[in-house]
Order: sequence, then C-alpha cells, then structure tokens
Amino acid sequence: MRLTRWISAAAFAAASFGVVAEQSAPNIIYIVGDGMGFEYISAYRYAYDDPNQPGLSATEFDDLLRGSATTYPDDDTLVTDSAAGATALSTGTKSYNGAIAVDSQHQPLQTLMQKARNHGWSTGAVVTSQVNHATPAAFFTHNVSRRNYDAIADEMATQTGENQWSFDVMLGGGLSYFKRNDKDWISVLQNQGMTVVTDFADLTRVQQTPVLGLFAPVGLPHAIDDDVNRLAYMTSNALRLLSAKDKPFALLIEGSQIDWCGHANDIACAVREMDSLNRTLRVVREFRQQHPNTIVVVTADHSTGGLTLGRDGEYAWFAQRVMKINASIEVMTADLLGMPGTEWKTYLQKQMPGLAFTAEQWQQLLAPAGIKDVKARKAAISDALVAVTADVTGTGWTTHGHTGVDVPVLAAGPTSEQLQGYMNNTDIAHHLCALIR
Amino acid sequence: MRLTRWISAAAFAAASFGVVAEQSAPNIIYIVGDGMGFEYISAYRYAYDDPNQPGLSATEFDDLLRGSATTYPDDDTLVTDSAAGATALSTGTKSYNGAIAVDSQHQPLQTLMQKARNHGWSTGAVVTSQVNHATPAAFFTHNVSRRNYDAIADEMATQTGENQWSFDVMLGGGLSYFKRNDKDWISVLQNQGMTVVTDFADLTRVQQTPVLGLFAPVGLPHAIDDDVNRLAYMTSNALRLLSAKDKPFALLIEGSQIDWCGHANDIACAVREMDSLNRTLRVVREFRQQHPNTIVVVTADHSTGGLTLGRDGEYAWFAQRVMKINASIEVMTADLLGMPGTEWKTYLQKQMPGLAFTAEQWQQLLAPAGIKDVKARKAAISDALVAVTADVTGTGWTTHGHTGVDVPVLAAGPTSEQLQGYMNNTDIAHHLCALIR
Repeated sequence: MRLTRWISAAAFAAASFGVVAEQSAPNIIYIVGDGMGFEYISAYRYAYDDPNQPGLSATEFDDLLRGSATTYPDDDTLVTDSAAGATALSTGTKSYNGAIAVDSQHQPLQTLMQKARNHGWSTGAVVTSQVNHATPAAFFTHNVSRRNYDAIADEMATQTGENQWSFDVMLGGGLSYFKRNDKDWISVLQNQGMTVVTDFADLTRVQQTPVLGLFAPVGLPHAIDDDVNRLAYMTSNALRLLSAKDKPFALLIEGSQIDWCGHANDIACAVREMDSLNRTLRVVREFRQQHPNTIVVVTADHSTGGLTLGRDGEYAWFAQRVMKINASIEVMTADLLGMPGTEWKTYLQKQMPGLAFTAEQWQQLLAPAGIKDVKARKAAISDALVAVTADVTGTGWTTHGHTGVDVPVLAAGPTSEQLQGYMNNTDIAHHLCALIR
Repeated sequence: MRLTRWISAAAFAAASFGVVAEQSAPNIIYIVGDGMGFEYISAYRYAYDDPNQPGLSATEFDDLLRGSATTYPDDDTLVTDSAAGATALSTGTKSYNGAIAVDSQHQPLQTLMQKARNHGWSTGAVVTSQVNHATPAAFFTHNVSRRNYDAIADEMATQTGENQWSFDVMLGGGLSYFKRNDKDWISVLQNQGMTVVTDFADLTRVQQTPVLGLFAPVGLPHAIDDDVNRLAYMTSNALRLLSAKDKPFALLIEGSQIDWCGHANDIACAVREMDSLNRTLRVVREFRQQHPNTIVVVTADHSTGGLTLGRDGEYAWFAQRVMKINASIEVMTADLLGMPGTEWKTYLQKQMPGLAFTAEQWQQLLAPAGIKDVKARKAAISDALVAVTADVTGTGWTTHGHTGVDVPVLAAGPTSEQLQGYMNNTDIAHHLCALIR
C-alpha cells in the first residue's frame, strides 16, 4: 500500500501559511513522538548523519531540547501505556493504563483541546495512526478504555454544538472506524457540512473546515514502506487551514508509529519514523518563523522496546547498516509468508541490499520456510527478522512493550523557556493549558 | 571491606568552606557520572522515591538538567569507552577508545587541568575508582593506553615543577599502583613534601596540599557494600582544601562505579552509586551557595549496560524490590563461592530480605552449587544473580559493555545557561576550558 509516494517535497514546502496580525494568546503546537525515548533521537541522528561532512549533521531536534519528563501512570507500575501517557499530556492528570481522558474513578477530565474550544480557539490533530487511536483520542474524547475504538470514533463524529465538532482539522488513518457496517459516519458528516477526504491528493484543495481526512482503513503505512513525507504533508495542510482563521489554534501532531516500530523491535522502521517527524519539525519551524507567537512542545508519552545502540558486549552500533534495510519487518514478514521458500533469499537481498549476513544468519532467516503451520511460520519469520536485524546492526531491545525511562522535552516559542530541566509529564499539560485564556 | 561505615552525615555536612572574596574567574566543578545515561537518573528517582509523599521526591539532578551530549569516539563505532569519553570531556578532542588525553596519532592533548595549572589555578580530583583509572587519568596524564596503570600512576606521582604536581588534591582508590614491588611512590612523595593519607579518618585532619588520598588498593568498595557517603565525604574535604586558597580551582568529581555496576548488570548496585552521586551533588550545591562564582557541570562519558526499566513485555518496573537488595552481585558471588551450598538460601534471604522468589528462581539461584570447577561455578553464580535480580525487578539489560545513546548534561552557575540543548561532549570541554584565562 503506497498511498503517498507521489507527495513531492515541494508540494508542502511551498504552502503559504499567510501572516496574520499578532494575537495575544499563542498558537499551541503540541507534538508527541509516541514511544520516542532519548535513544530514538540518538539512533536517528547517527542513522541520518552525512558521513562525508565533518561532525554530526544537524537535526531539527537539536536546538529544541530543554529537559526531560517522567511518565509513570496512576498506579505503582511506573510504566505507562499510550492512553495514560496521552491523558497526562492532554489533561494534566495521571490516570490508569488504558484511560482516555478519564481519571482513575472513570470521571471525564477536561482536555487541552476542550479548554481551547471553550475559549473559541481552533483545534486540530494530525497523526499517522488511526485518528481514534490512544493519543488523539485522549485529546478529543473521553472513554474508560482505549480499546473502545468505535465509541471513540462515534464521539469524534458527534457534534458538540450547532455545526460544531471538537475539532476543525483531523487528519490521519482510521476510515474503517468511521465507515462501518453498523454506521456510516462519512455520509452523516458530509450531510452535516463537514469536508471529508480520503485521498491524499485532495487535501491540498481543501479550503474549508471542519475537515476530516482519513487516508487509510486503520493506521497509515509505515514511513519505510511508503512515503516519509506523509506527516509533514498533513501538518503543512493543517497549519494552512488553522492559520487562515483569525483566532489562535491548538494542534496535536503525533509521530504515532515510532512506537509501533519499537513494539516490533524494528530499528530500520523506527529511524524512518524519526525522519518523518524530523521533516515535520522542519515544517513547524518554518511556520513558527512566520508566526512567532506560536509555542511548540515536542515530547514522548513513554519509550518503547528498550532500545539501545550497542549490545552483547560489542562497543559498536552500525548506523549505516540500519539504512540498508528498506522495508519494515511487518511488510517483509507478510511478503515472505506469501512466497515459496526458494525465493526468500533473493527477496531479502533485495530488501536489505549490501547487508552481508553470515551463514548462520542466513540459516536463521531461511529456516522458517520449513514450518507448515501458517501462524507459527509467520511468528518465526518475524522473530528471525527481529533477531538478525538487531544482531547485524548492533541494536539492543529488552521488550516488545514500553519502558519507564524519562523522555525528552523539547520546546520553542513564547514561555517555552519555562519548560526547562526535569518535569512531570503533567507539568507540560498544566503549562500549555494555562496559555489558553 | 567496610572502610567508611563510620562516616556520619554530620562529619562532612558541618565542614566550613570559608567564604573568600569574589574572584573574576569561576571555580570549575566538573562531575562525571561514569556510565550515567538518562535511564540511571530515572531508576534512581524511582528507587529513592518516598512512597508516603505525594508525587515524586525531588533529587539533586532535577534543577540542573539542561540538555544532552553525543559521546561517539574518533572512529566509526559510535560507542565510546571511558578513556575516549574522558579525553573528549577533558581536552575537547575526540580520540580512539583507550586513549588517555592523546589524539588518534598518539600526540598529547592539552587537558582542562593542564590549562588550569598553567593559569595558576588549583586542581583536584575525587573518584571512587583508583585515581589512575581512565577518567581521572585523562584529566591529569597522557598515555596511549588506559591499561598502562603503572605508567599513569608514575606520571601522576612525578613532579611537574619545583614541589609541584599536576594536582593539589587527589582522592580515591589505587594504593596498590603507588606502592608496588618495583616502586614505592608513597615514601618518595612524602619525602618530597606531599601529604599522603590512606585512612578515611585522617582526611578531615589534613590542612595542607598537595594531598594524595588512596583509600583502597584498587577501587573503593561499592556504595551498596560499604558507605554511600564516601564520595560526598571526599568531595567535602577536597572543596575545603581547594577553597582555602586565594585562587580559582578546577575539581573533577567522578561517580566512577555507576559504570561498574552497569557492566555487572547489577541494578541495586547502580542505584546506590546514583544515591552516592546525589549526596555529592548536595555537598556541591551547598558549596555553590557559599561560592556563587562556581560553575558546576554534571555529565556522563557514555551509558553502560543498556539498562531499561521494564522488560519482556511487562509494563512495570519494581523499584521497591530493587531497594530490598542489600549487597552487590560481586560481593554475593564471592560470599557464595566460599560457602557450602546448604547455606546459600539462608544467605540470599538475608541479603535480599522480603524478595519473594519463585520456585523456578530459587532453582536458578541454587543450581550453581553443584558445579565443581571453581571458575565455572563463580560465573554461574554471577549469571544466576544477574538473571534473577533483573527478572524479579523488571530490569532490562542488553550488554555488559557500553551503548551509544546520548547522555544527560546538567549544569549550574555562571555561563551554565550556554550549555543548553543538544551538544557534542567536546563542546563541554571547550566551554569550560574557555573559562580558564
């Protein structure tokens, strides 16, 4: 599924945001790198470094780094999921894992987006997951469980006032939750006056809000398998639409799939998602240069996978080998599953050109072809790809889940100097919510 | 070996540093947490949190955090050792792993301490390793290899001028390198007028510099096995001696054994070393309150062990279980090795009281008793302790070596606001060296 290959860098770089008269309240651009622990920034920096230039190549992250945040949820586990993490970031209150903007007693909490709405602000979200996934859900809806995807979609689609929804712009994946057997929200929303787009090419032509853009049945394809510019492109269009109004806005941007690649222990996938976020930060920086009264905060809800650069006693991480892997483990697994074992080696050499696997690693990669049961074969293919790509690149992983290590906090714009040093993730929400007045 | 149990908190808390007239150049206190990646600060924060207080307990690290630094050495591995890391931090030049303040062509590089000396400053170091270990070595000597411990000790002991050495205060372990079969530097140094102390109790009585304090044959015992105040106590006395002079000083403080516990994959050992550093930061903060013209920088040379809080898919890290472990894996291994297998269970219950091991974990812990070969038994005991303590506490490790993830940069005092955001480790050296003039 290659939805977005056609997006040229120029298609969004040239977007004009229009300079509006300075307003008193700042625009808020709240960026969540889902699962983006410090180690993902390090990995990205090395993977995308230009070896022909002296020193390390600059990234968009560099000038923004201000501190770190603790992410523990409202229990004694110390390790949060994305729902509790997003709830803390959107409401300023810690809750239980799975909570969507409700507290530990299941009571709804006011979100930053609700407060913005109550003050007449424009609101929006741009994500690479389905739009009803944990992070955007916890900014725009309330639910006792992140797993209630249909109910969360229903709440997003339900008007909060006359011709008004909780958002002006909502872009990402998730069409299958809004066009279901039991409910076709798409027709309903269009009849109510909402613009709905499902094709990336149509987004640049949208001039009117509210707009709901759903560009995949569930999440968008991984950047490594599709177009690394997808998040930057959606962001550019969201900023164009939101900044056209004569009022401040709050925009959530989520690099949703850093986490997904981390869960999959797929380092090549992860650094491409980081590149996707870096390109998005560039768009945001350009916007901020034209609209200095904009505060940008970038953080993570938690770190994922227990990623480390270096493993098993060897003092090396092979960044350039990571960049020779051109497909996600998810896609390679699916492809191999539908292919005779005799074709596997050629396929893998094509997807990971120039990676010199040892005889032992080849054996590990090709062994699952002999497994009859499809489910077991799929798991074995994926496990082998995880093990061999980790081994050959020197990448360590400790879990397919999350970890409890503090995450980076990056910020720029008015009052961002107050987000300095060590903080709780809820402090970020309190700081940003206080700017809405 | 319990050298320092007698040190009461009052013994150093009451130390008077004496307020001197403000000098133009700031004192430099350069603190290296060897191996202290961000994850060690997170682990420490959770392990030492007071569960009876709301929110997380404050640490000395909180207000100091300013950014992060990249640590790669001068080759294409991206993962540094402590020698190249310390060389970058002391000289501002990247070098090869193993280098002690020499460049990749083995040419000596000017260190921060040399520059300070050339400008008439006082200099010193306080470490919990042997004083001729990689980090202090790279601040005070030059050598093509960190492994040339005797030669490094010789260089430290050799006068650089009339009754002058490269340091005024040098405190840590390493007596066996200065009193060897082939050379008794202790007598030589005492004859030349240096004060040499080998007993902690004597340190508070020292009124004169230069002073060399060597309180263990090699490294000091781990904080978990001895006294957590040892680094703070040495620091307090070093600051007392250095600040008594009417000139600025540069002091290196190293929490050397965070790294050693990381290499051992020993989480209980690591958080105690972090506590040791936190107590030291408190002494430094108190000093800085009396001497505001002091810049303090805290960073790490690299991270060690690939530590993660949470592992194997479980969303939890059990901080309180970590705090129930009262001895290092190194000490427990040595003790078990000299003990009949029938006594192991009682011993382990005493060292880790209240930790409810499963039957399987007990089997894992007790199985090595059956191994005849001593070397193999020792390795098996250590491996079992690593595996079970990691399992029961939810701690992940990916290596017994180092990793390439960026490390924290913390700072306070004049010009520290310039050490902000992302930087290279060499930038820290350049910044501090420029203050010496």
